[in-house]
Amino acid sequence: MSQLLANSACSSSKIGFQGTPVHRNNFGYQRKLCFFQGIGASSSGFYGKVMSYQGLQKKNVPRNQGVQNVMAGETNQDVLSKNTDVFDSNSGGGLRGKLNKVVLAYSGGLDTSVIVPWLRENYGCEVVCFTADVGQAMVDVAKEVGADAVSHGCTGKGNDQVRFELTFFALNPELKVVAPWREWEITGREDAVEYAKKHNIPIPVTKKSIYSRDRNLWHLSHEGDILEDPANEPKKDMYMMSVDPEDAPNQPEYLEIGIESGIPVSINERKLSPASLLSELNEIGGRHGIGRIDMVENRLVGMKSRGVYETPGGTILWAAARELESLTLDRETIQMKDMLALKYAELVYAGRWFDPLRHSMDAFMEKITETTTGSVTLKLYKGSVTVTSRKSPYSLYREDISSFETGSIYNQADAAGFIRLYGLPMRVRAMLGKDK
Amino acid sequence: MSQLLANSACSSSKIGFQGTPVHRNNFGYQRKLCFFQGIGASSSGFYGKVMSYQGLQKKNVPRNQGVQNVMAGETNQDVLSKNTDVFDSNSGGGLRGKLNKVVLAYSGGLDTSVIVPWLRENYGCEVVCFTADVGQAMVDVAKEVGADAVSHGCTGKGNDQVRFELTFFALNPELKVVAPWREWEITGREDAVEYAKKHNIPIPVTKKSIYSRDRNLWHLSHEGDILEDPANEPKKDMYMMSVDPEDAPNQPEYLEIGIESGIPVSINERKLSPASLLSELNEIGGRHGIGRIDMVENRLVGMKSRGVYETPGGTILWAAARELESLTLDRETIQMKDMLALKYAELVYAGRWFDPLRHSMDAFMEKITETTTGSVTLKLYKGSVTVTSRKSPYSLYREDISSFETGSIYNQADAAGFIRLYGLPMRVRAMLGKDK
Amino acid sequence: MSQLLANSACSSSKIGFQGTPVHRNNFGYQRKLCFFQGIGASSSGFYGKVMSYQGLQKKNVPRNQGVQNVMAGETNQDVLSKNTDVFDSNSGGGLRGKLNKVVLAYSGGLDTSVIVPWLRENYGCEVVCFTADVGQAMVDVAKEVGADAVSHGCTGKGNDQVRFELTFFALNPELKVVAPWREWEITGREDAVEYAKKHNIPIPVTKKSIYSRDRNLWHLSHEGDILEDPANEPKKDMYMMSVDPEDAPNQPEYLEIGIESGIPVSINERKLSPASLLSELNEIGGRHGIGRIDMVENRLVGMKSRGVYETPGGTILWAAARELESLTLDRETIQMKDMLALKYAELVYAGRWFDPLRHSMDAFMEKITETTTGSVTLKLYKGSVTVTSRKSPYSLYREDISSFETGSIYNQADAAGFIRLYGLPMRVRAMLGKDK
Amino acid sequence: MSQLLANSACSSSKIGFQGTPVHRNNFGYQRKLCFFQGIGASSSGFYGKVMSYQGLQKKNVPRNQGVQNVMAGETNQDVLSKNTDVFDSNSGGGLRGKLNKVVLAYSGGLDTSVIVPWLRENYGCEVVCFTADVGQAMVDVAKEVGADAVSHGCTGKGNDQVRFELTFFALNPELKVVAPWREWEITGREDAVEYAKKHNIPIPVTKKSIYSRDRNLWHLSHEGDILEDPANEPKKDMYMMSVDPEDAPNQPEYLEIGIESGIPVSINERKLSPASLLSELNEIGGRHGIGRIDMVENRLVGMKSRGVYETPGGTILWAAARELESLTLDRETIQMKDMLALKYAELVYAGRWFDPLRHSMDAFMEKITETTTGSVTLKLYKGSVTVTSRKSPYSLYREDISSFETGSIYNQADAAGFIRLYGLPMRVRAMLGKDK
Repeated sequence: MSQLLANSACSSSKIGFQGTPVHRNNFGYQRKLCFFQGIGASSSGFYGKVMSYQGLQKKNVPRNQGVQNVMAGETNQDVLSKNTDVFDSNSGGGLRGKLNKVVLAYSGGLDTSVIVPWLRENYGCEVVCFTADVGQAMVDVAKEVGADAVSHGCTGKGNDQVRFELTFFALNPELKVVAPWREWEITGREDAVEYAKKHNIPIPVTKKSIYSRDRNLWHLSHEGDILEDPANEPKKDMYMMSVDPEDAPNQPEYLEIGIESGIPVSINERKLSPASLLSELNEIGGRHGIGRIDMVENRLVGMKSRGVYETPGGTILWAAARELESLTLDRETIQMKDMLALKYAELVYAGRWFDPLRHSMDAFMEKITETTTGSVTLKLYKGSVTVTSRKSPYSLYREDISSFETGSIYNQADAAGFIRLYGLPMRVRAMLGKDK
Repeated sequence: MSQLLANSACSSSKIGFQGTPVHRNNFGYQRKLCFFQGIGASSSGFYGKVMSYQGLQKKNVPRNQGVQNVMAGETNQDVLSKNTDVFDSNSGGGLRGKLNKVVLAYSGGLDTSVIVPWLRENYGCEVVCFTADVGQAMVDVAKEVGADAVSHGCTGKGNDQVRFELTFFALNPELKVVAPWREWEITGREDAVEYAKKHNIPIPVTKKSIYSRDRNLWHLSHEGDILEDPANEPKKDMYMMSVDPEDAPNQPEYLEIGIESGIPVSINERKLSPASLLSELNEIGGRHGIGRIDMVENRLVGMKSRGVYETPGGTILWAAARELESLTLDRETIQMKDMLALKYAELVYAGRWFDPLRHSMDAFMEKITETTTGSVTLKLYKGSVTVTSRKSPYSLYREDISSFETGSIYNQADAAGFIRLYGLPMRVRAMLGKDK
Repeated sequence: MSQLLANSACSSSKIGFQGTPVHRNNFGYQRKLCFFQGIGASSSGFYGKVMSYQGLQKKNVPRNQGVQNVMAGETNQDVLSKNTDVFDSNSGGGLRGKLNKVVLAYSGGLDTSVIVPWLRENYGCEVVCFTADVGQAMVDVAKEVGADAVSHGCTGKGNDQVRFELTFFALNPELKVVAPWREWEITGREDAVEYAKKHNIPIPVTKKSIYSRDRNLWHLSHEGDILEDPANEPKKDMYMMSVDPEDAPNQPEYLEIGIESGIPVSINERKLSPASLLSELNEIGGRHGIGRIDMVENRLVGMKSRGVYETPGGTILWAAARELESLTLDRETIQMKDMLALKYAELVYAGRWFDPLRHSMDAFMEKITETTTGSVTLKLYKGSVTVTSRKSPYSLYREDISSFETGSIYNQADAAGFIRLYGLPMRVRAMLGKDK
Repeated sequence: MSQLLANSACSSSKIGFQGTPVHRNNFGYQRKLCFFQGIGASSSGFYGKVMSYQGLQKKNVPRNQGVQNVMAGETNQDVLSKNTDVFDSNSGGGLRGKLNKVVLAYSGGLDTSVIVPWLRENYGCEVVCFTADVGQAMVDVAKEVGADAVSHGCTGKGNDQVRFELTFFALNPELKVVAPWREWEITGREDAVEYAKKHNIPIPVTKKSIYSRDRNLWHLSHEGDILEDPANEPKKDMYMMSVDPEDAPNQPEYLEIGIESGIPVSINERKLSPASLLSELNEIGGRHGIGRIDMVENRLVGMKSRGVYETPGGTILWAAARELESLTLDRETIQMKDMLALKYAELVYAGRWFDPLRHSMDAFMEKITETTTGSVTLKLYKGSVTVTSRKSPYSLYREDISSFETGSIYNQADAAGFIRLYGLPMRVRAMLGKDK
């Protein structure tokens, strides 16, 4: 899950790790989202990334290829998935016994490896494993293979389960969902290992991290272990995308981000595709210790949880886009956009990507950012991002108005009338006191 | 003017100078304001600081003493103010010719020194000079000396004129206001010097800065000169309260801020009065280059302007208070508080301190922060503030719920029902599509 | 459930039945709630009413008396409750078999009568029946009788279950809840009758209405039967508190409501207690066909439902209070109050009466309505409420300002400056277009 | 000015005259505006109507024809305008003496007739009179005739001056504005008559109403005279578009409004153009006394004013559109749309039709109302509008879910998990209390 989303949806403005932006949701997800629509093949591509399940799949699997993996021979899958790809059995409760074929979002890790025999044993159904970095691609697979249910390895405590399932609802409301973590008796790694052995499942050799991590192009999240006590500072060796600010270069680095209609398009005047641009900023930002956020957030399922995020590129982009808007949008417009952005973030955080409300807010965002074009120069130093310059052909800032020198457009005498009428309710109220 | 206010009221979230908080208005002004009520003798005391006029008066003049200065002999005033304290003349237009006695907010600088003879010449009135760090204290003086108007040296472009005049409206709606900058022909320093010479007014020896600056306990602001082009990076020698992050210590410093019901009360377990606490944090934070903000803001009078602010102590306090709230308030409460804080900031930014709406929001804030008690540890390093630990006896975070280990309070199976009902509108909408 | 709440929480602005107010949530529940706190003995008293269970209990049972009913001899209960008051048995699943004693919110109707043996049979527990018009009173009873769980007869589809259970959470988070409708196999009246016969339970003689109705001092709601199709107009004979507007008097009736600090205190200058005042307005309003609302609302559990409400007195009070505010509050204050009222309504609708957020909003509301004192005259005619006069000693309306005649306080010339600065962003934007 | 706008922008929810909707701004101006874009030739056409100046011009003058009137011979104008069409003179102050040609929005009434010689006398400029029902059409005229300023007859107290001038700013920021009422010495009718006589201007024979009225297709407003005391009930003979409810038919009338993607398209299945549809509803609604609103509103220039409005057709349309949305939009979408609608109304009320923020909100509204298609049946009776039926092919209401009968889509057992997680923060808070 993206810290960007976490950060916004829960209105938790944090002083991030050295300069990390606070209300990044104000970034206007539109920006990020349109931008990311450029990264994936489509909005569903992006969504797939947001939903990326527990595990460390990093390869971008285009939708059709993902389907082919499943359908044609799982050549990219390990032995386990080959072996477990299709099961048949016949027991269960609730939905148990009522399902014929289930598509499982399969990561290759211990948890999902164990789910395969568990589904067979408890639901008596055929199991199709599906591995990809792309989420929607899954409902389609269920249709293609004729499955009547889908399954995932999310626990019953997180937001990821909500995102998976709301997307299923939106794309195929008839699809059933099986979430083993909400049902089974397995409560930890030892149980799972034991279950795997008992069912003769090879235990994946991936060394289990002491942290629970999710990663995609946008971010990397850390949860669990000592982080579970919010009084503990994270250990230095936990971070993976960014150096410790104390180890960052002693010389600041300046970057110029070019933006067109709200979409970042260039670094130091080099035009880049959205994916390349973000990748490169992740690398540059990470080198300077940019984009660490350590926060207590409020999950959709009602609990507080503590998470630490790394978003070097996102932090830089957010700063740049936000700053440019301070030139191109007026006060009331920024306020309204911010209010919508909060809702936008809430929808994305809650897995409601396919909600008409999001589509409608996108229409607003596209229109309002038409003139957010220009460039912003940022200084990166020891974990912080500082804006040093902003320029736009559509800037509403006018030196001839704001200058201490007198200009012709702004007549200072106008301020007298303005203040007297702006303050009229205050004068009337005060007169009321006097009259009594 | 406080950058805190600027920052919030205009919703201009900036990536501040190395880690400076962005949406600091979310701080909930309540915190700051209650806190500052402890600094001054009263809320009007605080307000006086907010309104502090152009100039570099730093001494805290308690209200009564301020009045005494004016009434008894101006012993703190320079020769000029002695000489110009009372004038008599008889010309003018509009209000000109209709005023008998005007109390002038007098700083001792060139502008207000010139205003004295100008008022005499153009309004034909007696002028009482009043010098203090405290704003309200001024309406009282007008009453005590029997003045029928007040005057100030604000230009017709800023927010300070609005704050002055709305406070006058609130406290005495019958008081007239004369704002020479909105009327006279003087358009710059040269004009003013010439006018002073012509009227035999000693020109104050204070070297005029190339920047326009305002300072109080909370902050220091810079405007003008090269800052008027938002594409220019500020010069290093402009800053006065904070070192350049590159010159800050190479070792981070940890600070623990103690908070009781939303009010900061201690540093590293040493209890301090509000004023001492803020002073000390200004000093510590300044040493680490904390609290610089460089932004384009939206003034009340409709223009964009560019300002650079230094708020070392405020930045640290905001980070601490905000973080503690992430433990003690739930999501919806934070959202509602944030929404009110935006309005609160807007009111303060606009000089509406005495608006019943602000009083009512204070009542909300006091109640909602009752349990915001605990401590937050922060790391200061090269311009950035990072939270490393937070604790509260009223924390709503429970490790036994959020832990990856199974607990008894949270039943993962509940998530299934939660998601199905939370997603019901989405399922219904999707079924609609299917039905067609 | 109060239509007032329904109406607001779901933002469903309806054109009510002849003049019924639309956004009545804007009333600011504070008004209603404070007011109702005067009706019951305490806020819990009011809450009890809001939660009033399915059935037609109309008698107000003070808390202690309610407890006494339960503890001492159920003299107000019918034979059934006497017989079924204490059971003992030992079976069940989930919580089944784990509970010793359950307090049941007992109405005397068919549903809750059937629940008694069902709990005994399925949970193997002792059942204590509790009958009252007061909700909190129930957690206390559980404590007094040493019960480890409470039970109610709400279905799994409504909002009432949420209100019951969130209140239980707030007052005693350790109390278990049994909601038979969410568990059992009984799906309708026939099943229930059969179950009752099988278990030798006398079937209550109350004739089952074809509508599901809830009633308290504030309102009466109707759901079910032909109302389940939103294309059907309600039948005339369904209504119980109000005559059909077509049958209402041909002469309008004028009423003057007196209000002090936002609380209605008198009708036509007769001072009345809150309960008497509301009762009387229900009677007067009902006579004129006032307060019918027919709407499709959005329940907390994610579904849309159709309900018809009668609130004669509430409609009149809302109109009066709202109107008085148009004199005593300025525009921004009304906006902020409205925004809070929406959230307030949402909290109450969702059963979160004991949320600190509500308490904090109350603090705001109390302060902001301090000056909402005065009187409003309303005309009742054939289903509609029309304001004909409003007066307040704290009115911010000034005839000498708004009049077409010239006055001294408002200087029309000020409007020129006001408009030029208010429109400055628009001018700057337009100049931008011209410059290109 | 439209009461619709007044009503919303100031958040003044009124109990309208017999059933008039309250928060009509929630209507989502989008609806009205798109709708009205169908009435005029363009959005500017609509805007022209909103701005319609003081006077009783009722004829729709297409833009080009309006221009022709001015340019070619004023055949529709009375003798006065012929005579005064072009003046030449040479005096003035401020802008006085600096303008060559001024286009005056000319109504033919006393006020604007007097303005013609006044401008000549005081500004020494040529005056071009322009009469039309269409606002923008005016900036174009100024361009065509080579005028350097425009002038209008609005007083300095109303909202109409703001709307005129902000539109001028947006369409041509270089155009100067002369507003005689904010400058001259004429303070009432007697002064004006005397001035007219002195300058040999024929006094228009239109009998001056004791009320100030504005009228367009959407509404009719009344201000002034006894209405200036908000304690006075309006007189029956003041109303012009609607009968008194007491004189309305004793039989209710049912109407079915057809709506497509949020736009009203038919009455009782007869398709009608927007203009015809509204006209017809005005006539039908007026016959039943529908759409009267009597309110104290908050003008942009800071004062409260009292106005009475008649909007028969608008009231009916608003009720229908709003009701249909209760079927087609979910709760959160309605909330977000309502919030935007408030801002939309504020912009329109303030004359900011050409603000990019409005355009962006339109993009949102168009998208979100795509499925608001269906029909609503309303009952009109003695001043009130009651919805009796609503239908939509996109209805999100499902009888199989909300019914008291059991269905397959909604599983009541899910509610248990939903409530436990929805109430988790409440349980945690309560446990905190218990732990202590």
